[in-house]
Amino acid sequence: MLARPLIERKRDGGRIGSGEWRQLMAAYAAGDIPDYQMAALAMAIYFRGLDRAETGALTDAMLRSGATLELAHLTKPRLDKHSTGGVGDKVSLVLAPLIACLGVAVPMMSGRGLGHTGGTLDKLESIPGFRTGLSLAEATQQLEELGCALIGQTGEIAPADRKLYALRDATGTVESIPLIAASIMSKKLAEGLTGLVLDVKFGSGAFLPAQERGLELARTMIELGADHGCPVIALLTAMDRPLGRACGNAVEVEESIMALKGEGPPDLMRVTYALGAEMLLLAGTVRDRDDARRRMEVAISSGRAAEYLQRLIQAQGGDPRVVDDPGLLPEAPECDVYVAPRAGVVACVEPRAVGHGIIALGGGRTRVEDVIDPAVGFVITARPGDVVKAGEPLATIYARDEAGLAAGREALTRAIVVADDAEPPLPLIAYRITEAGVEAYTDG
Amino acid sequence: MLARPLIERKRDGGRIGSGEWRQLMAAYAAGDIPDYQMAALAMAIYFRGLDRAETGALTDAMLRSGATLELAHLTKPRLDKHSTGGVGDKVSLVLAPLIACLGVAVPMMSGRGLGHTGGTLDKLESIPGFRTGLSLAEATQQLEELGCALIGQTGEIAPADRKLYALRDATGTVESIPLIAASIMSKKLAEGLTGLVLDVKFGSGAFLPAQERGLELARTMIELGADHGCPVIALLTAMDRPLGRACGNAVEVEESIMALKGEGPPDLMRVTYALGAEMLLLAGTVRDRDDARRRMEVAISSGRAAEYLQRLIQAQGGDPRVVDDPGLLPEAPECDVYVAPRAGVVACVEPRAVGHGIIALGGGRTRVEDVIDPAVGFVITARPGDVVKAGEPLATIYARDEAGLAAGREALTRAIVVADDAEPPLPLIAYRITEAGVEAYTDG
Repeated sequence: MLARPLIERKRDGGRIGSGEWRQLMAAYAAGDIPDYQMAALAMAIYFRGLDRAETGALTDAMLRSGATLELAHLTKPRLDKHSTGGVGDKVSLVLAPLIACLGVAVPMMSGRGLGHTGGTLDKLESIPGFRTGLSLAEATQQLEELGCALIGQTGEIAPADRKLYALRDATGTVESIPLIAASIMSKKLAEGLTGLVLDVKFGSGAFLPAQERGLELARTMIELGADHGCPVIALLTAMDRPLGRACGNAVEVEESIMALKGEGPPDLMRVTYALGAEMLLLAGTVRDRDDARRRMEVAISSGRAAEYLQRLIQAQGGDPRVVDDPGLLPEAPECDVYVAPRAGVVACVEPRAVGHGIIALGGGRTRVEDVIDPAVGFVITARPGDVVKAGEPLATIYARDEAGLAAGREALTRAIVVADDAEPPLPLIAYRITEAGVEAYTDG
Repeated sequence: MLARPLIERKRDGGRIGSGEWRQLMAAYAAGDIPDYQMAALAMAIYFRGLDRAETGALTDAMLRSGATLELAHLTKPRLDKHSTGGVGDKVSLVLAPLIACLGVAVPMMSGRGLGHTGGTLDKLESIPGFRTGLSLAEATQQLEELGCALIGQTGEIAPADRKLYALRDATGTVESIPLIAASIMSKKLAEGLTGLVLDVKFGSGAFLPAQERGLELARTMIELGADHGCPVIALLTAMDRPLGRACGNAVEVEESIMALKGEGPPDLMRVTYALGAEMLLLAGTVRDRDDARRRMEVAISSGRAAEYLQRLIQAQGGDPRVVDDPGLLPEAPECDVYVAPRAGVVACVEPRAVGHGIIALGGGRTRVEDVIDPAVGFVITARPGDVVKAGEPLATIYARDEAGLAAGREALTRAIVVADDAEPPLPLIAYRITEAGVEAYTDG
C-alpha cells in the first residue's frame, strides 16, 4: 500500500476511507510506512482537518492496532476521567479512589508530564514502590479484585497512537483537534469504558488556551464517544492559574491525600466533585448531582476514600503508609518561602511560568527521555485576587539545592504578578458539554 | 538546533530567516535533522508558501550545501536552458550543441525521467558509451576546452536539494511553487551561469497543467534569478501534445540528430529556435531575434551544429558515429505501425497517456531505481487537427517483444483520439515572461 496517494488526497481536501485508515495505521504500526510519510500526512490533517467519520475511523484504526482491556464481564459500570492537562491538576489522584470506593470500576490510564504540564504517572511514582507499569492482565485482575487500576499506556495498547503521538510532538502537528481527539479516544476506548468524563482546560496554561478550541475538542470527543457506544460528558474548566496549591509531584500527592481526608483546597475540591458527579451520573449509581455530591462527601468524611487509596497503593506495590504519614514521600533537601515583593493585589499566577519553574527545579520534562526529581516543586498559597502586604508569604519552594531555590524564585517572580488591581480570573468551571449541546455550568 | 519551532512558525504562517534556512539545510544535509521533520516542514510550506526572500534563502542554503562549477575565468557568456518537463521534449539535445557551436558556453545539468515525463540524461545514455556522470572537475575541463558539458546533478552539487527532492516525491509535497523554484535554481545557480532560459510547460501533460501556475513558477524563478545576479527569461510552451514525433530515448536522440541536420519536425524546431534566440540574446552575442534565428539556421545548414554534437559525444565517451549513422543507436527488436481506428480528425494526442505508454514499454520509470530500456518508444506522426482515414498510419511502436507491442497499442488507443471534430490545440509558444512582465509570444 502506497501512502503518497492518501497524503495527496488529504492535502487536496479529500477524505480517507475507513478501510484505508485501517490499512494505513496497521502498516504504520508495523513499520511499513516511514515516519516521514506519516509526518507529511499529519501536517496535511493539521491544515485540512478530518470529518466525523474519518476521525472515528482513525480512532478505530489506532485502537485496533493493539490490545484492549476486556472488562465486559465486570457487572459494575466502568468510568474514567480524562483531563487535557494543566499545572497543579491532581484531580485524577483524588477522583480515582473516591469514585472507585463508591462502587464504580475505574480503569484509569494516564500519561507523563511533558513541557509545562504535569502527568499523573509521574506523580504516582513519587509514592515509594508504586508501579504504574502494570500489564493488561495485571490491570484486569486488579480491576476485578479492587475495582480500580492506575496505569500508563502499555506497549500493548494502541501502539499506532503511541508512535504517531511521538512523531506529532517532533513535527509541530500536536495541536490538531481531530488528531488530539483520536489519540485520546483510541486509548480511552481501549479501557472498555461504559462512560467517560472529560476535563477540558482553557485559559493561558491550557494546551488549547482559547475557549472555542476547547469547546470544539469537547464536541469532537463527545461525537467520537457517541459513535463508539461510550457516552462522554465534558466540563470546560479554568487553567489560567494552577489548580490547588501544590505544583510538582510528591507535593501534589500529599495535597491529594489531604483532599481525600477532607482537607483539600476549595478549587481542587470543586472541580473534583463536579467531575465526580458526572462520572456517578454516567454510571447510573446516583439520583442526581446533589446525591452524587453527598455520597462523595460522606466517602471522604467517613475515611473510606482515604482507606481505599491505601488499598490501591498497596495493590500497585507502593508504600500505603504514605496516606497516614505523607512525610514518607520524597522530601526536598532545601525549601524557602517566597514573599510578596510589594503590597497590592495578586493579578495572576501564570501556570505556564509555574510549569517551567518545575522543569527548572528538575521536576518536569522538556523531552520524553528526561528523568524527573519527584521531591521538588511549589506550594503556592497566593490566589488571583488576594490582597497582599509586602513581604507576606505567597509560596514555598521545594528544591534539590541552592541553585534550585534560585531558579524557583526566578520562576515565581515571573509567575506571580502583584499589581495595583487585578482582572477577575476565569470562571473555574465554565461549561458543561453533552451530546445535546453546551450549557453554562452551575454546581446545583 | 531544533527544527520543531521553525516547523510550527511556518505552519502558523510566519517567516523563516536567512540564517535559519542556512542552519536548517546544512543540518538536514548532514543528517542532523530527520526526514520526518523536513517532511512536516515541506507540507507546511505547501500550504503557507514562502515569500521571495525566504525562497531565495532556501535556494542559497541548498546551493551552499555543496560544490559549484567555478567558470568565472571563462571569458564566454555561460547559458543554460531548463524545461519543467514533458513528453517528447528533446530540445536540450538539440539546443546544447547548437548554442555551444555559436560560441556560448553551455554547462547543462539535466535530470532523469520519472513518471510520464522523460529525462535528458536517459536519452543521452542511449548513445553507446555516453557518460553523463562527469565530476565537476571533468565538466569544468570540458567546458574550458569544448564549451559544453551535459551532466547530471552530481553528489557534489546541492546535496540538500537532492535529499529534499526525494523526500518531497514520497510525501506529496512536490507541487509547491517555491519548493520547485528553489530546487531548480539551487542547481542552476551552481552552474555559474550568466543567464538562464526557462521552458515552462503548460497543458494536460505538464507538471503544472494550469497556465496561471506555470506563469507563477516562471515569475518566481525570474525573481530568484534577479536576486542572485543571474538574468532569467521564460517561455510558456504547450504540453497538451508531445513535442516532435519521437517519444522515448534512442528514438528521441535520433530525432535530435536529424534536427541538427536540418530535418527536425516544425514544432520541435520552432521551440528550439525560440529558446535558442533567448539564450543568444541573454548572452549578448546577437543583435536581435532575427539575427539569432539566422545564425542558428546557418549553424545547422552548414553542418557545424551536427559536427559539434559529434565532438561533444566523443568528449563524453560516446560513439560519435551515431551522428552520421543513427542505426548505431539501440534498436528495438519489434516494431509495428499503429493505424487510425476510424476516419475523422485527430482530436488529441494525450502526452500523459503517451508517457505512461513509454513506461509500459519499459522505457520510463515509476520509481527512481527503475532501469529503463533505451530502445523502446513511439514515433507519432499524427498531430492534433490532422484529418485521417480509417487504417491510415498514425504512429510506429518500438518494443522489446510482442507483449510490449500490445502494451504500446493499448497506450496509443488511449492517447490518440480520432473524432468527428477537434478543438484547436494550445498555442505552441504562448507567453514570454521577463522581469518586466508577461507578454504574448510572437516569433518576430
